Amino acid sequence: MSEAEVSGAELSGVEVLGAEGYGPAAELDARDELAAHRKDFVLDDTVYLDGNSLGALPCAVPARLAEVVAREWGEMRIRSWSESGWWQAPERIGDRIAPLVGAAEGQVVVGDSTSVNVFKAVVGAIRIAQADDPARCEVLVDAATFPTDGYLASSAARLTGATVRAVRAAEMGDAAGPATAVALVNHVDYRTGELHDLPAATAAVHRAGGLIVWDVCHSAGALPVELDASGADFAVGCTYKYLNGGPGSPAFLYVRRELQPRFDSPLPGWTSHADPFAMTPGYAPAEGATRGRVGTPDILSMLALEEALKVWDGVDIAAVRAKSLALTDFFLRRVRAYVPGDRLRPLTPQAHERRGSQVSLLCDGGPDGEHAPDAETVMAALIARGIVGDFRRPGVLRFGFTPLYTSFTDAERAARALGEAVSEA
Amino acid sequence: MSEAEVSGAELSGVEVLGAEGYGPAAELDARDELAAHRKDFVLDDTVYLDGNSLGALPCAVPARLAEVVAREWGEMRIRSWSESGWWQAPERIGDRIAPLVGAAEGQVVVGDSTSVNVFKAVVGAIRIAQADDPARCEVLVDAATFPTDGYLASSAARLTGATVRAVRAAEMGDAAGPATAVALVNHVDYRTGELHDLPAATAAVHRAGGLIVWDVCHSAGALPVELDASGADFAVGCTYKYLNGGPGSPAFLYVRRELQPRFDSPLPGWTSHADPFAMTPGYAPAEGATRGRVGTPDILSMLALEEALKVWDGVDIAAVRAKSLALTDFFLRRVRAYVPGDRLRPLTPQAHERRGSQVSLLCDGGPDGEHAPDAETVMAALIARGIVGDFRRPGVLRFGFTPLYTSFTDAERAARALGEAVSEA
Repeated sequence: MSEAEVSGAELSGVEVLGAEGYGPAAELDARDELAAHRKDFVLDDTVYLDGNSLGALPCAVPARLAEVVAREWGEMRIRSWSESGWWQAPERIGDRIAPLVGAAEGQVVVGDSTSVNVFKAVVGAIRIAQADDPARCEVLVDAATFPTDGYLASSAARLTGATVRAVRAAEMGDAAGPATAVALVNHVDYRTGELHDLPAATAAVHRAGGLIVWDVCHSAGALPVELDASGADFAVGCTYKYLNGGPGSPAFLYVRRELQPRFDSPLPGWTSHADPFAMTPGYAPAEGATRGRVGTPDILSMLALEEALKVWDGVDIAAVRAKSLALTDFFLRRVRAYVPGDRLRPLTPQAHERRGSQVSLLCDGGPDGEHAPDAETVMAALIARGIVGDFRRPGVLRFGFTPLYTSFTDAERAARALGEAVSEA
Repeated sequence: MSEAEVSGAELSGVEVLGAEGYGPAAELDARDELAAHRKDFVLDDTVYLDGNSLGALPCAVPARLAEVVAREWGEMRIRSWSESGWWQAPERIGDRIAPLVGAAEGQVVVGDSTSVNVFKAVVGAIRIAQADDPARCEVLVDAATFPTDGYLASSAARLTGATVRAVRAAEMGDAAGPATAVALVNHVDYRTGELHDLPAATAAVHRAGGLIVWDVCHSAGALPVELDASGADFAVGCTYKYLNGGPGSPAFLYVRRELQPRFDSPLPGWTSHADPFAMTPGYAPAEGATRGRVGTPDILSMLALEEALKVWDGVDIAAVRAKSLALTDFFLRRVRAYVPGDRLRPLTPQAHERRGSQVSLLCDGGPDGEHAPDAETVMAALIARGIVGDFRRPGVLRFGFTPLYTSFTDAERAARALGEAVSEA
């Protein structure tokens, strides 16, 4: 199922059948080659469009986690560090994530939070850039970044004597210059759902002699992320959104293979040591992805994530992308049909190449703003109708589309309820 | 049950009944007021003396974790951040740990690994010390520290322009001087089991004008840790040893209340922001313990820990300490009775005030070393007999005594098996 096929089918279906009933949606669902994956998740009558914040529970996780607790911890206890493969979990699970972000094995390690990984990556990148050219003392930060990235980048800069400059993601390539150590960019904007051009920005920053760190929290598992192919230097991402790892599940760090020997982590914990059980007072970093580890890995969360990742076995990320675009196209069209006037303005770009896997709608009232519905009120009304998205101040309704389990019927129901909620707001 | 009573009872019991059978041990078990807590843990015929590395599974954890996964994640999904109390978990669980480390509420927060918390604490302490006196540019690090503390302290120093000097823990007070920013000390030495004098070292470092960071990984849950009473500045600790939180469960950070407004974290993640959901580009730190948070909390591990901590309800830490000393006294005496010659030399101090809750035995062969058994071989032989401790290179056998579930009969069986294993090694 190519992107063009889905979009074409969706468009003609809508045009012919109009907004009544779930007919067009049901037809699209019937032709959805990913539809069978929905049964891999615990779902109910709720239309869950918040998988971009917390992914739904994969059905296999509870039994696996129960086994980890009862057998591996409860019965085997300390032996599990070797006999149950706990010690190698960060690299092993990293290798499960790798193909989803376009990385060959041995470059992704799982552990810590996204925030902590941003810190490792930005300090690591600054150190490499400055080793090559001490004049590179500026960190460019996506001006619309999810805030934690900016906070940690500022801390990294402060601790390394660098400075920070906010730059719009789309202008990152132009902004990079001889003073640029590193650019930190969100692949998909958490607020608007805008997708940035990872290969182009990477190439532009490289041409200026800088390094680039990508935050792929809102793209990993939702669309192709071509880290290796684009030559990205570092990437960080979370696993609890489109990767369905569970609330606050461990994040991941990608360090391009060629840079690994030069990666000088600011958090050199004992599990990143070349010989951790020698317990030597001097630090000597391990080779490869292991160098990105810090402390003792958080096994319960990690092994829940490992099981959750099995839903991706055999899934083609290109098919995921095709369905994602078909879903967001369909939803945007249905919103236009159901929501009166100009009261919701899409912040998410119409162009496919600039759209992530969410739709963000700004509660707006036209030029005078007088009819703007309150986003929090609208979202509460939606939730009361069994439609779960979320909102971000000020005034943004967010709807995440997770192609492994979101259906076109979900999108139809959500748009219809949104029309009702806005009319009442 | 006072320390003196237990020790007296144990000593007289051993003297009268000798080394045959479990008689003295069974008698001590029968009089053990903490014995009833053993049923709160999943145990089997193994004598598990590695709770100082990974605590046993509390019986209540599997059902609670299953509920968190199935209901809070699976059914309530995103709503659980508010409705299931996920968001406040780091502070709430911190307040459960607080009384175990002698802290009033509002000063302990749970999250990240011990290594990451060491980094926060050491950088935070350096910044406070240097704000008061820029000449304070030295970090004193316990020369026998668990390595990760030293690695992270070195990184903290490197990033703040400070230097590091290794100092024996017992000499920390004497070493501190006008250049001291902070001293980082292990409360109990992970290798030898030696307990350091927290109040005295804290007072001495304070007299020199420095701050002190305590690593209480090997004391929290094993003996009284009087953070508030001693005026300790920062403390970090893990929760998977004597606190039984599960493999790699989140660590904790204590920041003394008076220092909280001055704590300037090097990892200012979004969840430590004064208004995290305002998503503002500028960082403004929250007040109180929340300032020690970083990224999105790891809920599965955190709520497993929260349930595990309930085994402490109603437990008097003084009674835990009394039993711990009685157990290690008894074990040391039994080892002397069962192990031939001088082949195992206790590294753990005999004096109660210098002993943690483990016994470390160095495989030794006297002055010429020719009869030294191989520690790894001895431990393997013990494990084959169902006695689980661990070893640390070079040549150290470690046996942890966890008063809530270790019995005197366990200690008796372990000593007897150790005698056999050493004889055969």
